Amino acid sequence: MMATKRFNRGVALVGAGMSSFGAFPGKTTRDLFVEAFKEMEASVDKGFDPKDINECYFGNFSSSQFEGQCFTAPFIANAVGMNPKPAIRAENACASGGTALRLGVMAIASGIADMVLVGGYEKETDQPTEKVTEILATASDNLYENVAGFTFPGLYAALATAYMHRYGATSETMMKVALQNHENGALNAKAQFGKRIGDFIMMKQKSAEKRGKPIPQWDDEMAFLHDPRANPVISWPMRLFDCSPVSDGAAALLLVAEDMAHNFTDKALHIIGNGIASGVPMHDRTDLTVIETATEAGRVAYEMAGVLPKDIQACEVHDCFTMTQVITTEDLGFFERGQGWKALEEGRTARDGDHPINTSGGLKSKGHPVGASGVGQVIEIWKQLRGEAEERQLPGEPTLGLTHNLGGSGQVCVVNIFERR
Amino acid sequence: MMATKRFNRGVALVGAGMSSFGAFPGKTTRDLFVEAFKEMEASVDKGFDPKDINECYFGNFSSSQFEGQCFTAPFIANAVGMNPKPAIRAENACASGGTALRLGVMAIASGIADMVLVGGYEKETDQPTEKVTEILATASDNLYENVAGFTFPGLYAALATAYMHRYGATSETMMKVALQNHENGALNAKAQFGKRIGDFIMMKQKSAEKRGKPIPQWDDEMAFLHDPRANPVISWPMRLFDCSPVSDGAAALLLVAEDMAHNFTDKALHIIGNGIASGVPMHDRTDLTVIETATEAGRVAYEMAGVLPKDIQACEVHDCFTMTQVITTEDLGFFERGQGWKALEEGRTARDGDHPINTSGGLKSKGHPVGASGVGQVIEIWKQLRGEAEERQLPGEPTLGLTHNLGGSGQVCVVNIFERR
Repeated sequence: MMATKRFNRGVALVGAGMSSFGAFPGKTTRDLFVEAFKEMEASVDKGFDPKDINECYFGNFSSSQFEGQCFTAPFIANAVGMNPKPAIRAENACASGGTALRLGVMAIASGIADMVLVGGYEKETDQPTEKVTEILATASDNLYENVAGFTFPGLYAALATAYMHRYGATSETMMKVALQNHENGALNAKAQFGKRIGDFIMMKQKSAEKRGKPIPQWDDEMAFLHDPRANPVISWPMRLFDCSPVSDGAAALLLVAEDMAHNFTDKALHIIGNGIASGVPMHDRTDLTVIETATEAGRVAYEMAGVLPKDIQACEVHDCFTMTQVITTEDLGFFERGQGWKALEEGRTARDGDHPINTSGGLKSKGHPVGASGVGQVIEIWKQLRGEAEERQLPGEPTLGLTHNLGGSGQVCVVNIFERR
Repeated sequence: MMATKRFNRGVALVGAGMSSFGAFPGKTTRDLFVEAFKEMEASVDKGFDPKDINECYFGNFSSSQFEGQCFTAPFIANAVGMNPKPAIRAENACASGGTALRLGVMAIASGIADMVLVGGYEKETDQPTEKVTEILATASDNLYENVAGFTFPGLYAALATAYMHRYGATSETMMKVALQNHENGALNAKAQFGKRIGDFIMMKQKSAEKRGKPIPQWDDEMAFLHDPRANPVISWPMRLFDCSPVSDGAAALLLVAEDMAHNFTDKALHIIGNGIASGVPMHDRTDLTVIETATEAGRVAYEMAGVLPKDIQACEVHDCFTMTQVITTEDLGFFERGQGWKALEEGRTARDGDHPINTSGGLKSKGHPVGASGVGQVIEIWKQLRGEAEERQLPGEPTLGLTHNLGGSGQVCVVNIFERR
């Protein structure tokens, strides 16, 4: 193992904004990104001149397949007045946003830029769901996985099954992840499904009442999640509420060289750790209960930052499916192998726990517009570390946060560590 | 206009290799990239250990649409044993390869890497030609251009028409570009259509003879190119031989920090200039006879390198269509506006001219596997500046070379300047 290398120059985050995540039939990625950019602009405490942005890095999974528009970078740059600045699209499936952030950091560290715009965007809901599933499946291994009939719910179901088999977690573990994330997302106005499970129950009941049907009753939220009509199986053992949704959305960040940060805000976030790792597709792994790229990207980020997993106070992980969140909390060293599901069930990852996870609601509740997701995670850390997370604000003024952004079935993972000094 | 910024650390090219460009029905991009990687490995004069590669940057336009495989970076990295190293795909349409090179330079300059693998790949020929045209059209503006019926031959035909109208160039100018590039490509064993126009005439004649048909005769090569049966109109005024082909191929480069270059070769190429610019799509321009991103990227690259257009001795430009080559020689400052076509017709851009262009055969003859093209251009400069270009070697031991890689209808352009010290 080689020594962890470092960037030549520190980088700070001084602005962050996002569109709402959801289904927006009348909007394109350009529209959504303009919304995110404007919110980012407004978030820069002391203001800035967009003309001073030197370069743009954008994460996008596959607008070519979703919207018939490949080559999005110059179009998005144009939409926010950035031409002729360099504009580059990074693609690493669901880790495209995290990858774009990595490139933005690199650009400033290289000396070629002092101020960088990082963005992410995806517009998925114009396609029918079965087409979305097919498009997303192009991020699995097309020579071995999707040709064998696998789509992503199937791949992650295999991972969930392996974990349950080895460590004794159950379907209830996954349901509790959904419960927790929707509890958080209900406090996030930008979330696509910003509702508690109890809210879904009320919706079902109201809908039945309206249609003059018998009003369904459930003893509690878990009973609702156990009911195969309310929460149908998608790919056993995963049900509907174990899957993140199909979403539209965009997010934008403003990075500057660390020594310039005070010109823009007194509350900058310093990017003190950044790790990225690549690995093999799921069919080629010997152990489905770990995602090695997460561990490797985490190791690099922790080493670079000089912090330990236990130091992290705010954390957004890539919960594309509920069990992924559990496994990730082990991959990142928050809990021992096989202990993540117990920690979850004990409430340790809730907002008032000792390792709060996905206070934004996570991809599960906030939404998962693929290319935007990794950038959107950063926005939650931005809010939590600046004390701006409103009702979902973590107690104790957290100063150290982490984002974990996964691609495909984990062939790429990006981990960032942020410090508010 | 802001002052040109610089990279914190010099970067050198110490290895370069490519697959043949062509149509390879039995191969995937992974196979093609392995071929390129192996040739790159063999090209490093003093050898190197692939384990020392820190990061990988790959250019790819749209394997998702061509092969059903998005998220190619980790798969390609895996194919050449690079996991768990960071692997990132850059996409900027036909400028994806040049963009990947830009990121590789940035990675080393940032301090996060000392040795970087840069690659490019595309596998287009598994799709029928009309589908390829449709896929490529996703690089135009999907809100304004392809919905209006434009595909790339149509867009570039508009550019050719505008140039002819303003400056007096003719269809013959374009034919002479094809003649010259095929003349060069005939000396390149890796070229997809490595044949002189005279060779195509002989092929047509042999084919007729074989089928017992009357043997067609043409007075000379220009007569052949004027014959609408031999060289049919694709999108007026452009004919078949004005268009680069649909291709498969891959290319690989090895970059290291400048101060380490002597460990790998005594004949490194130093990347002394690197410019990239973004711009508006064609429907939004006021002048179709220039491509402003090329001029802007060139300006940045020249300033960074401290050289002038007249200093460039070897040059590969993005001749996706013949007239693009002519316009590019003006965009890059080799000739005054409106003079490029005369320079071409006077033979000044031929191998024995004062501004040799596309000695490899260019995209026109060598082939245009989109994501690989920008990387493949560098391989020609590598060979020319090291005196390894065999029969097409430029005289006088050139030490300064340039590559120009264009995306879409020019919404992105990347210009690199290389020096052999």
